[in-house]
Amino acid sequence: MGKLIFIGLGLHGCKSISLRGLEEARRADEVYLDAYTSIIPGLRVEELEELLGRGVRTASRKLLEGRETRKLLRSAVEKTVALLVPGDPFVATTHISLALEAVDLGIRVEVIPGASIASAIAGATGLQIYKFGRSVTVTYPEEGFVSEVPYEVVKENLQRGLHTLLYLDVRVDEGRFMSVSEALRLLSEIEERRRDGVFTEDRLVVGVARVGAPDSVVKAGPLKSMIDVDFGGPPHSIVVPGRLHFMEKEALVKLAGAPRSAVEKHGWGTRS
Amino acid sequence: MGKLIFIGLGLHGCKSISLRGLEEARRADEVYLDAYTSIIPGLRVEELEELLGRGVRTASRKLLEGRETRKLLRSAVEKTVALLVPGDPFVATTHISLALEAVDLGIRVEVIPGASIASAIAGATGLQIYKFGRSVTVTYPEEGFVSEVPYEVVKENLQRGLHTLLYLDVRVDEGRFMSVSEALRLLSEIEERRRDGVFTEDRLVVGVARVGAPDSVVKAGPLKSMIDVDFGGPPHSIVVPGRLHFMEKEALVKLAGAPRSAVEKHGWGTRS
Repeated sequence: MGKLIFIGLGLHGCKSISLRGLEEARRADEVYLDAYTSIIPGLRVEELEELLGRGVRTASRKLLEGRETRKLLRSAVEKTVALLVPGDPFVATTHISLALEAVDLGIRVEVIPGASIASAIAGATGLQIYKFGRSVTVTYPEEGFVSEVPYEVVKENLQRGLHTLLYLDVRVDEGRFMSVSEALRLLSEIEERRRDGVFTEDRLVVGVARVGAPDSVVKAGPLKSMIDVDFGGPPHSIVVPGRLHFMEKEALVKLAGAPRSAVEKHGWGTRS
Repeated sequence: MGKLIFIGLGLHGCKSISLRGLEEARRADEVYLDAYTSIIPGLRVEELEELLGRGVRTASRKLLEGRETRKLLRSAVEKTVALLVPGDPFVATTHISLALEAVDLGIRVEVIPGASIASAIAGATGLQIYKFGRSVTVTYPEEGFVSEVPYEVVKENLQRGLHTLLYLDVRVDEGRFMSVSEALRLLSEIEERRRDGVFTEDRLVVGVARVGAPDSVVKAGPLKSMIDVDFGGPPHSIVVPGRLHFMEKEALVKLAGAPRSAVEKHGWGTRS
């Protein structure tokens, strides 16, 4: 009997995979690398193949949620198929959908977790994980239409004193990765229309890039001082802190280089 | 110059550590294992020592946040000290506090992420990570006092249609680990007093145990049918689902064995 095994690759290069994930990938009959839902900085396919001692097929959108999905699933009916995914599996709905199709075909599904930004953001910023409200993605405008959902979510979280993790749009197939700067510009534009005091010039924000990688960057400060910062290569994310505990203030100053003044006078409220 | 490096061990046994974490731990001058903030099912210290090819010192509460912390930090002023932690570092405030003390002493701090329940819960349940509101811990009563904070948090999340991840109390030093059953009983007791319709008999809940381990258990159903289920060894957690997308309903049925009726008639509302 076959199985489909989702293996989290973690956040950086080849070596963020777990030992168990490595063993399972080496043992599998077929190994695919998800090159669609996100990217891992520093990951080179040749290096991954060397580490696994075998060939790895790159899985595009077509294979993961398009017309070629059946091909991948057909293999898993009798063989063990491993799908290596950036970060932690099932954070992308593509993976959940694929797993459910597999179950319908009687294929056993296993998941080997990997490190994910959803949790590593606490290690990167020193902000407490249980004080994060819901997270949301800032997406590129579609035909001029800018989604205001991220603005709404941050506003709602701020009103409850909660932090927000903003994922930034990643379109691997188009080679587009939203930067902290691009996202803050989009959010400031919404602020100009809405005027609810969510993304004002003085709003304390934390920009992070390549969390979990040796060259990761974390910088906190008022929006106006962060909008022109170059965080380097993708992926980028933003955190908007809510009410700050004393220790969190210290962390933003000491781990994220926030100006002490910005943290001390930090008010998490909004205008409406 | 020394450094303090936090290395996430992930969620199960010795082999959830990343390759990079393993390399760093092997290279470090001193290696400690955090045996205080949480536990990893299936982890045996001797096996870990064999994997690392070196001795590992067990770090108790005293060493991590008590009067012996200075000892650990003094080592890190000149040497490389690795602290192996369950799950992902910095999810426990103990680690953030230790990191900040280290920075004050001029010690470089590094973090190597590990898999965490905060993200792996999506892989275990098929629920979408960005629809989780804030999380909270259900704690053991202290001198008869039962905290109602978890009740409040779930209520608030439900009113917004959001899912809630409930961490259950882990007191490694006392050998006490709250079970799904114990937690549901505590929450039902609060319901009897509050009557806001949050933890009623029909409330759909998901119990999970040992997420990320090969013997993990995930079961979803109405509270009344889950309260007597034995999930086996720790750690346990609970998810209270909010508004469910079609795919999430399918996932709860197919991955968590929820009765289809419980999912179809699922209402996420509360009474007040």
